[in-house]
Amino acid sequence: MGIQDFLSSGDARLDSQFLFTAEIDKMTSVLRRTLLLDLSRRENDAEHSWHIAVMAMLFSEYAAEPVDIGRVVQMCVVHDLVEVYAGDTFAYDAAGNADKEAREKAAADQLFGMLPKEQGRMIRSLWEEFDAMESADAKYAACMDRLQPFLHNTLTDGHTWVEGGTDRAAVEKRMAIIKEFMPQVYTWVAENIEHAIEAGWLK
Amino acid sequence: MGIQDFLSSGDARLDSQFLFTAEIDKMTSVLRRTLLLDLSRRENDAEHSWHIAVMAMLFSEYAAEPVDIGRVVQMCVVHDLVEVYAGDTFAYDAAGNADKEAREKAAADQLFGMLPKEQGRMIRSLWEEFDAMESADAKYAACMDRLQPFLHNTLTDGHTWVEGGTDRAAVEKRMAIIKEFMPQVYTWVAENIEHAIEAGWLK
Repeated sequence: MGIQDFLSSGDARLDSQFLFTAEIDKMTSVLRRTLLLDLSRRENDAEHSWHIAVMAMLFSEYAAEPVDIGRVVQMCVVHDLVEVYAGDTFAYDAAGNADKEAREKAAADQLFGMLPKEQGRMIRSLWEEFDAMESADAKYAACMDRLQPFLHNTLTDGHTWVEGGTDRAAVEKRMAIIKEFMPQVYTWVAENIEHAIEAGWLK
Repeated sequence: MGIQDFLSSGDARLDSQFLFTAEIDKMTSVLRRTLLLDLSRRENDAEHSWHIAVMAMLFSEYAAEPVDIGRVVQMCVVHDLVEVYAGDTFAYDAAGNADKEAREKAAADQLFGMLPKEQGRMIRSLWEEFDAMESADAKYAACMDRLQPFLHNTLTDGHTWVEGGTDRAAVEKRMAIIKEFMPQVYTWVAENIEHAIEAGWLK
């Protein structure tokens, strides 16, 4: 892909925006543990980010505090961008999560550094807000980020739980933000955890 | 995927939101003509929708009128949902585009009809606004929807143009909204059209 031959617009700012746009296409090859619902293959980061963005438009009525859906949708589409360089870290992988923060910070410097400064800062700040999980918008986005793979697991015979030998406590810890921020939705989550135990998908 | 066995939350409204969420996962198997930039395979609708949503966060400074980025990002993530049932219609396929409207309206009835009424209406209305390409938000979203595959074509040796035997006039027609609404970006588009002609990618 000979970017250098013809991509330049003669405007360094616009060029950097095009280059960033091309670079993040790599999200399509960052594979997650979750299966697509047609069982054809593992889901990638681009698909997951899109899916939770649409979900964010649908589930806000269950949120414990008001959220800004337009902001949350933006947070959803950028929340995993650093994985272009840092890779996906499986939620239930303790070792991988130990150095996740350092890997992702380095990735953020590299990736967001490609953009005009204020745009890099804007996206980085949305990502940091998401990761801190303190604001209402971030809590709601985090709920979507956990609910979507949970839904996929319940619809694919607990695929990633079985594969990872995951136990109930780990899933309950991961879903705690839903229990806190979306209690009505958590009722459904809790019933499905019971079902997963009975079915032998979760230890 | 035995939805009926365990998905029910006992709340018909929440159930319908989960079912819609599961249904739209089919966007990951609606393939477009565009190649991913690593040339590994054709891009799917989920990936494309995600990609233009992120782009919408970056290019608004070039828009001829002010746009509401939070709204446009929502428009981007839902703009192709009807293709879950209607399939992707290649932009440069005249026959496919002849009955596109009827196919997509039927798909919208079916898909958006799964949701609680006001949510179905909300998403349908964003999709209709996108399709009408009259509001500033819709024009800007349409620019992203055309700029992203154009960028991919320029970076994959004109893949879909070569494959489809596409000519310059068809591309210029497709890119007209960029010329109107993002003239500075169109300068770059026009240069790349010239390059594509010289390289033999476009007739």
